[in-house]
Amino acid sequence: MSSESDSSASTGAFRFAARTRHLQPSAIREILKVAEAPDVISFAGGLPAPDLFPVEAIASATASVLAQSGPVALQYGLSEGHLPLRAWIAEHLAETLGLVCRTDNLLVVQGSQQGLDLIAKVLIDPGDLILTENPAYLGALQAFRAYEAKVVGLRSDADGLLPEALADWLHAAPVRPKFLYLTPNFQNPTGTCLAEARRREVVAIAARHGVPILEDDPYGRLRYSGSPAPALATLPGAGPCLYLGTFSKVLAPGLRVAWIVTPDRTLHDKLVTAKQAADLHTSTFTQRVVTETVRVPGFLNDHVARLIAAYRIRRDAMLAALERHFPAGCTWTRPDGGLFLWVTVPGAIDTHAFLPTALAGKVAYVPGAPFWVDQPVRNTLRLNFSNASAERIEEGIGRLGSALRAALR
Amino acid sequence: MSSESDSSASTGAFRFAARTRHLQPSAIREILKVAEAPDVISFAGGLPAPDLFPVEAIASATASVLAQSGPVALQYGLSEGHLPLRAWIAEHLAETLGLVCRTDNLLVVQGSQQGLDLIAKVLIDPGDLILTENPAYLGALQAFRAYEAKVVGLRSDADGLLPEALADWLHAAPVRPKFLYLTPNFQNPTGTCLAEARRREVVAIAARHGVPILEDDPYGRLRYSGSPAPALATLPGAGPCLYLGTFSKVLAPGLRVAWIVTPDRTLHDKLVTAKQAADLHTSTFTQRVVTETVRVPGFLNDHVARLIAAYRIRRDAMLAALERHFPAGCTWTRPDGGLFLWVTVPGAIDTHAFLPTALAGKVAYVPGAPFWVDQPVRNTLRLNFSNASAERIEEGIGRLGSALRAALR
Repeated sequence: MSSESDSSASTGAFRFAARTRHLQPSAIREILKVAEAPDVISFAGGLPAPDLFPVEAIASATASVLAQSGPVALQYGLSEGHLPLRAWIAEHLAETLGLVCRTDNLLVVQGSQQGLDLIAKVLIDPGDLILTENPAYLGALQAFRAYEAKVVGLRSDADGLLPEALADWLHAAPVRPKFLYLTPNFQNPTGTCLAEARRREVVAIAARHGVPILEDDPYGRLRYSGSPAPALATLPGAGPCLYLGTFSKVLAPGLRVAWIVTPDRTLHDKLVTAKQAADLHTSTFTQRVVTETVRVPGFLNDHVARLIAAYRIRRDAMLAALERHFPAGCTWTRPDGGLFLWVTVPGAIDTHAFLPTALAGKVAYVPGAPFWVDQPVRNTLRLNFSNASAERIEEGIGRLGSALRAALR
Repeated sequence: MSSESDSSASTGAFRFAARTRHLQPSAIREILKVAEAPDVISFAGGLPAPDLFPVEAIASATASVLAQSGPVALQYGLSEGHLPLRAWIAEHLAETLGLVCRTDNLLVVQGSQQGLDLIAKVLIDPGDLILTENPAYLGALQAFRAYEAKVVGLRSDADGLLPEALADWLHAAPVRPKFLYLTPNFQNPTGTCLAEARRREVVAIAARHGVPILEDDPYGRLRYSGSPAPALATLPGAGPCLYLGTFSKVLAPGLRVAWIVTPDRTLHDKLVTAKQAADLHTSTFTQRVVTETVRVPGFLNDHVARLIAAYRIRRDAMLAALERHFPAGCTWTRPDGGLFLWVTVPGAIDTHAFLPTALAGKVAYVPGAPFWVDQPVRNTLRLNFSNASAERIEEGIGRLGSALRAALR
């Protein structure tokens, strides 16, 4: 700070004392920085392809927002979010998912991550138990743990959470968990989908045990193969579900516009209060830009179709390259959508320790360990396929395959 | 939610269980909704004048950001914030306040409110004591209390916090408070400024007792009379200070771009981690729009000069109207800047109970009670003068004066 304040030692050096329980910095954050070198082919980020962002549509929407309603688009707004945007989201959810909600049950947030943070802030007392699949979305683990929740990871496979793992845990549970957190569609990090039959079982088991569900659905519209499965919140017999959606993967993440659908008004009001204390409201400007962009009839469906066509090619390129270049003993998920796939390499390789070798070979990934809730399975890693061309994917997976082969020799 | 999930009663009705300690909703929020009726002249909001927003400058900056760097402006960004923006802020603080900081010590946040929230999240353990002036900024009280801090309001007058009140409290203090929170310039709600001599005393007392300072400075550049006083963080002998600044009052609040200057790197890193868990990062789009807007040489100084010229007229209009229309026994602050002034009416009037009467007379204000840390002084109220023309101010203060006279008759 100022040179004067650096001399505070003369008055007895002291510092801001942080709270006793510290937040854990993200392991991925540091990896992403290293992976940014221009000659590294990085499958580490969770990034949508920037060349596919609808820049012109957003530019035209922005110009129109500022020309038609500049002053109000730059003024403070409601903590709940811009009403026409909430109305659009409600209609969109009814249309695409059969999820019926009122604008009164919708809160606009600063990306899904803020949704997770506010939900945690409102619901979690220190020591509360949260159930989830395993491995699980790291950003959610961080958000829940920041409020001192104890997260329990339940056994999951290529079709998502195992209903019997949930039932067994709940049967033996010492206390009722606060909620069950799931990403049923193309989960981060594994890319797997919760199979439809399992969805029905999971909501029935959760309802029977009085456990509400937090359904996180950033990738649901990005399906490249297979048939869509119903949202948990829409299944018959489901108990209360919070549903998190976002424009980050279907429009652009830099806008930071997402939403929470809340099953009851009391909880909605608590979330609005928490949102207000957290940052008053999401940018009125970006909310209006999103509204103006998506309300052009057919725009979002057409844009999502373009994303699907492009990402399908990249997913297929990565699956083919893995077949071609990865050594025997490696297995991987075959996602029907989303941005990621998940690789298990031979047990001799700890993917965290191996990362510098991969980076020396000019390729990056995210080691799997931080995604595991408790005991990490150290021979796992996450690959992102949405943010590289098929050619770069072929080249990068080739590099990673060579490095793995060399290490296993 | 869906009609199906509403039938959850059949599986045994249950709900999300909120945490045991609840967040308190804002009293002001509800008042602002009522005050929105078109025939009401509202002095209730804390709103900058939207007709003075630099819409054209922002439109031109936005067009240029999207044309020149659309994809990267819409992609995920660093949790710390856009580096060129942090560089601009560092230069701006050095130039305007003599506050020297590195970009490494700057974190871009989603409005000052998020700065308060993240600082609270990182620093406050339940039961921690926070010292502040009294009355104090309500948004800060909410942010601190959400993390279960106990806030202590110290005696303050027309020149801000009384140094002897701070010294006496600290002398007798059972435990060291976590920090001292102050808005030294044109405080919300009172509009008062911490006098320069007091600034020196306050930082010396705080340093002597090992109490760090959180300096919140949203209004500092909006000075209409008098001479600027130095920032606390720049005073000789000051201990560690966190400094919060924002573009909300000098550019536009709807963009939600503000910043925290942190005195030490360890605390900065903790705040970055908290920011990442809270919402990953502030919108890359709005950050780049702000950067492009303010980096036009002379733009911000010229714009601030326009704001000062306009707001000075409004402040003067309100002071003159108060003299003209308010009954004997009322007193008010005479702010040298900012957006607010603070009125004390005769003790017979509880401004909360009186509000419906004022609204019936088609004028709105914010009752003072929620701004008081402990025991509210119920015959106080806050008036905003920045968001109404001199004519509307004359008319509105006339209405409020009549209503007060009638009540006192």
